[in-house]
Amino acid sequence: MTQQIASRELAANLEMIRLIDQKRSGYKHSGEEIYWMINHLDKIPDYQLSAWLMAVCLNGLSEDETVHLTKAMAYSGHVLTLKRHAGHNHSDACDHDHHAQSCSESKYTFVDKHSTGGVGDKVTIALTPILAALGFRVSKFSGRSLGHTGGTIDKLEAIPGFQTDISMKQFEKQIADIGIALASQSMEFAPADKRLYALRDKTATVESIPLIASSVMSKKIAGGADQILLDVKVGSGAFMKDLNYAKKLAKQMVKIGKSLNLNTRAVISNMDQPLGNTVGNGLEVIEAMELLEGKYPEDLYEIVLELASSIADVIAVKDVIHSGKAYVKFAEWIEAQGGDIRKIREANEPKFKLECRSNRDAYIKKLDALSVGQAVHELAYKASSNGYDIDNTAGVSFRAKVADQIKPSDILFIVQGSNEAELEIARDKILAAYEFSESKVKKPKLVYKII
Amino acid sequence: MTQQIASRELAANLEMIRLIDQKRSGYKHSGEEIYWMINHLDKIPDYQLSAWLMAVCLNGLSEDETVHLTKAMAYSGHVLTLKRHAGHNHSDACDHDHHAQSCSESKYTFVDKHSTGGVGDKVTIALTPILAALGFRVSKFSGRSLGHTGGTIDKLEAIPGFQTDISMKQFEKQIADIGIALASQSMEFAPADKRLYALRDKTATVESIPLIASSVMSKKIAGGADQILLDVKVGSGAFMKDLNYAKKLAKQMVKIGKSLNLNTRAVISNMDQPLGNTVGNGLEVIEAMELLEGKYPEDLYEIVLELASSIADVIAVKDVIHSGKAYVKFAEWIEAQGGDIRKIREANEPKFKLECRSNRDAYIKKLDALSVGQAVHELAYKASSNGYDIDNTAGVSFRAKVADQIKPSDILFIVQGSNEAELEIARDKILAAYEFSESKVKKPKLVYKII
Repeated sequence: MTQQIASRELAANLEMIRLIDQKRSGYKHSGEEIYWMINHLDKIPDYQLSAWLMAVCLNGLSEDETVHLTKAMAYSGHVLTLKRHAGHNHSDACDHDHHAQSCSESKYTFVDKHSTGGVGDKVTIALTPILAALGFRVSKFSGRSLGHTGGTIDKLEAIPGFQTDISMKQFEKQIADIGIALASQSMEFAPADKRLYALRDKTATVESIPLIASSVMSKKIAGGADQILLDVKVGSGAFMKDLNYAKKLAKQMVKIGKSLNLNTRAVISNMDQPLGNTVGNGLEVIEAMELLEGKYPEDLYEIVLELASSIADVIAVKDVIHSGKAYVKFAEWIEAQGGDIRKIREANEPKFKLECRSNRDAYIKKLDALSVGQAVHELAYKASSNGYDIDNTAGVSFRAKVADQIKPSDILFIVQGSNEAELEIARDKILAAYEFSESKVKKPKLVYKII
Repeated sequence: MTQQIASRELAANLEMIRLIDQKRSGYKHSGEEIYWMINHLDKIPDYQLSAWLMAVCLNGLSEDETVHLTKAMAYSGHVLTLKRHAGHNHSDACDHDHHAQSCSESKYTFVDKHSTGGVGDKVTIALTPILAALGFRVSKFSGRSLGHTGGTIDKLEAIPGFQTDISMKQFEKQIADIGIALASQSMEFAPADKRLYALRDKTATVESIPLIASSVMSKKIAGGADQILLDVKVGSGAFMKDLNYAKKLAKQMVKIGKSLNLNTRAVISNMDQPLGNTVGNGLEVIEAMELLEGKYPEDLYEIVLELASSIADVIAVKDVIHSGKAYVKFAEWIEAQGGDIRKIREANEPKFKLECRSNRDAYIKKLDALSVGQAVHELAYKASSNGYDIDNTAGVSFRAKVADQIKPSDILFIVQGSNEAELEIARDKILAAYEFSESKVKKPKLVYKII
């Protein structure tokens, strides 16, 4: 290390001590201070960042500070500027005036959708082609399975041939051509958030509304969206267990969106039991596709409708679903990314299935989403030398969910997968996730609030 | 790294996340949890420790937690057990019963003294031989100059031949033989505190009463004292600027002492102006020695008397000073550690002196200790490849301090040192530390409180 670099690092460390002290003492950072920090992240050691993160957890960030942090993180790496390319086939050759004119001519709205994570949450796969069929440009970056919750990328990879690791060029071309593209979350977006997020996980500084909100929103902004749909999950199977906390978080994210001139809507929904009738990568892709074919469980349909109609007319939303237009868009999308839609069912046929039947007359009082998520995750994900081996056929199909009445020998659910011996373990765990009641049970509320 | 070690580190990291979360959420750690943390410090990364330290800064530690932390840090390394050796010349050969008996025969009290740091603070050098002359066993570990404050080790090294890096064997023998020994703070004591302290300095987590109190007390306990005298400084030249904060800290330290059955007294004193008439290593050693010769400034005498008489009869204290017994003890001590008392004055004769005279009729309203400390530090300490080169002859002698009346051409102070050019800079800075008043100024209170 040359002396010059060493002295620059020392200066950064001293400035960071001042900023930690400022936050520790309950003062606000200026926008300049936050930009300085994020721009000098490579010179700030982990131990200083984690002290700052804890000070933020305990003393908070103001709305201004949160907006600055979000913006600074969003611009810490590559930021997609989708508008520029839409409508004139990625030509950068036009001069500025011409560009401004053709932009105003192409009146597309670029939508991104984000879920805070749940069990059986295949909403993205059904919703995004609906939005594209409605005329939105859907630009979506998704993640893999995290803990007991599923990941859209993992689910889509259950489609034979489907590619999620596509180039930016293809991504942008696909949006221009068919109005929809979905790729795995790239290292390019908001690298500052990646650094902070990894550290928060190891220092018990995850639970902070401004930190969660800025982390989510920075990635959406870097992804180039101008319309953001947030699906905020609350309950046993979600990361958030408390409705008030979820409301605060949703409000915070919507405020950040507004401050940055992005339309942002948040739907807060119940994640006490799994969403839809299936949990498992292959099963969930099929269930999402079937919704577009007009065959769906009520709860999944309700949440898809709620999210879509928060930015479009509900009649139009129902029309693109029931006319088959959304299904056609789904097929186009899957084909564009190399997937073979005709092989989805065949490829996800499991080697083994195991039914679990009722032994009583009762009503279902509870079906714990967390236990189901964990049981399916254990069945499907096996640690290997380079991460995980995933059994996409592993999963569960429910025949009875909360408020349903069951009789003796009725099927409660069917577990499936490639490993016969483990199916019994999964069955026992999922059965233990049920609670029964002698008396009638009211259907739980699904959508709590729209912000 | 073998897999076993890796998995043990992972387990430690997960447990530490739980403890950070516990403190972040405002809960108390049990004694076992605190001991676990300090005992596993080598497996806990800096970024987790700094998040915990910040959570402690903001959510505090209870008295119980502070006592556990102090004890855990004290026992994280070598702990001196001075009692065992006292009275029977460091023989470890005796069996336990015999040892217990001879211990109860040797009724020595082992005193350690600590100052939170100030400008012109030569109290340790004058006080420790007084205590030894009174019959206490003085076992003192000191540090070097920190920031603008002086360090006792640096001051004593202005005595030709004086060794501070003495062996434990010599340290213990000297205490048994002449009742006093002083060594530089060894790496052996409370290594856990050293790790935390270094991190606190870089993460703006220094200012926390339980962390400061446990840091100070853990080192005193490891040093084997059973009587602790704390000199808590407040004001411009101290690390603490606020009297209430200093009172809380002093109370916390006294409580820790009591919880561990150690007699602990704290004197809270004013550090708005330098203590005594001199600042600078050589000058301060001479001033401390002169106090024992019966020639002293009132403020230095007052604080020495206050500290000594908090654990001994004030008549006895005055007697050992004025009879010359303390001076004899001082001479014994300096000689035992290789110093030549006759050469102190000669060795610290400066190459250059520069007077600063008054140009007005006035009273001294203020003499800012911080500015004086910084000016002398800049004059005396020059960064070099292996730390600092120190000019022990550099310093300042005051002829006029707060409340003194001055006439035109009266000497205010004299700066001295080896570098003539820099004396003018130091003179200007020290002159700027003065504030004058037309009207009479009351002598400031020196001792605020004894706890």
